[in-house]
Amino acid sequence: MRADPRVIRSKASILEACAELISEEGFAGVSIEAVAARSGTAKTTIYRHWPSREALLIEAFGICSDAPYDSPDTGSLRDDLIAVLSGLALKLNEGGWCSALSSLADAASRDAELERLHISTLALRRKPLTDVLERGIARGDLPAGMDIEDAVALLGGPLFYRAMLARQPVEPAFVNRTVDAALGTLKPHPGGDLASPEP
Amino acid sequence: MRADPRVIRSKASILEACAELISEEGFAGVSIEAVAARSGTAKTTIYRHWPSREALLIEAFGICSDAPYDSPDTGSLRDDLIAVLSGLALKLNEGGWCSALSSLADAASRDAELERLHISTLALRRKPLTDVLERGIARGDLPAGMDIEDAVALLGGPLFYRAMLARQPVEPAFVNRTVDAALGTLKPHPGGDLASPEP
Repeated sequence: MRADPRVIRSKASILEACAELISEEGFAGVSIEAVAARSGTAKTTIYRHWPSREALLIEAFGICSDAPYDSPDTGSLRDDLIAVLSGLALKLNEGGWCSALSSLADAASRDAELERLHISTLALRRKPLTDVLERGIARGDLPAGMDIEDAVALLGGPLFYRAMLARQPVEPAFVNRTVDAALGTLKPHPGGDLASPEP
Repeated sequence: MRADPRVIRSKASILEACAELISEEGFAGVSIEAVAARSGTAKTTIYRHWPSREALLIEAFGICSDAPYDSPDTGSLRDDLIAVLSGLALKLNEGGWCSALSSLADAASRDAELERLHISTLALRRKPLTDVLERGIARGDLPAGMDIEDAVALLGGPLFYRAMLARQPVEPAFVNRTVDAALGTLKPHPGGDLASPEP
């Protein structure tokens, strides 16, 4: 069965209205009523496509986050990481996206269903980064037993802190520095100058 | 003029009620009415002590964050950093504090007054960390021209990411690893094994 083009258009306009409202009001401030009013759709139509307000909010947040993009593959781990994190920096420097993300983090901490959806969306969003890391492991640039979760937090964390908490722009030089900090600890250190990392 | 003990008690009970409500409902969900009801205080009393809802929320968040503590001074930069960040990890691993922080970040991104208050609170909260970094510079363990803002983001960012976005506990081994990653790039590298950090 092919999807009805009217249904596709209707879903798209609902998602767009919802994404706008998330940027403007935050997750907590978006009601199905407001989405219905802005998109010119009946509430019953919205509930036909999404089982819950949470499911709609998460899908709309995916829209305002852009679809997951391909991961760069230049052959240089450092260059690939800088490319992926520069993409993240661009999004974080858009005030609306950063607001929506803070709002999602807040809402997910109060609602188990939203938390589950948030975690699965996060897994999708960060795939370009984990792809780059996995290629680095396959090439031997990173250790085989490396913890990917740790690496993602070391690479992405400073950028999120800068935008969401310190509320400052994420500059290209800072992206480079974050990548170098993470690589310094993730790569094997043949007689490095640091104290031994963990007990 | 000495403060009236009744006024001190009344302010304390207002702040405590507000801090509880922030943990339960998030910043967006806390009204002066609700704080008045929970603390058994009149709204006019609340407005006598705080010029705005935002000012009350930020001060109450400071309460649920604990007062700024002294910074450790063991003589070892790495040990001091691990001590400060372990304290942050403990707070982040408390669900309520982490929720309140996400909620504050969200609210600050939508309200200029809250943002200003948030930034000044953040400056106070992170003083133990910046003290440790400044002592490291004074001792020559860190370069004199080092950017303190960058260092704070490299050190704190991964922990905030882990708790607020990935929604995982911040483990001691991860704190150590974050400190080593940051120190690897912050300390001077005599012929380090990394590609040159910045163009």
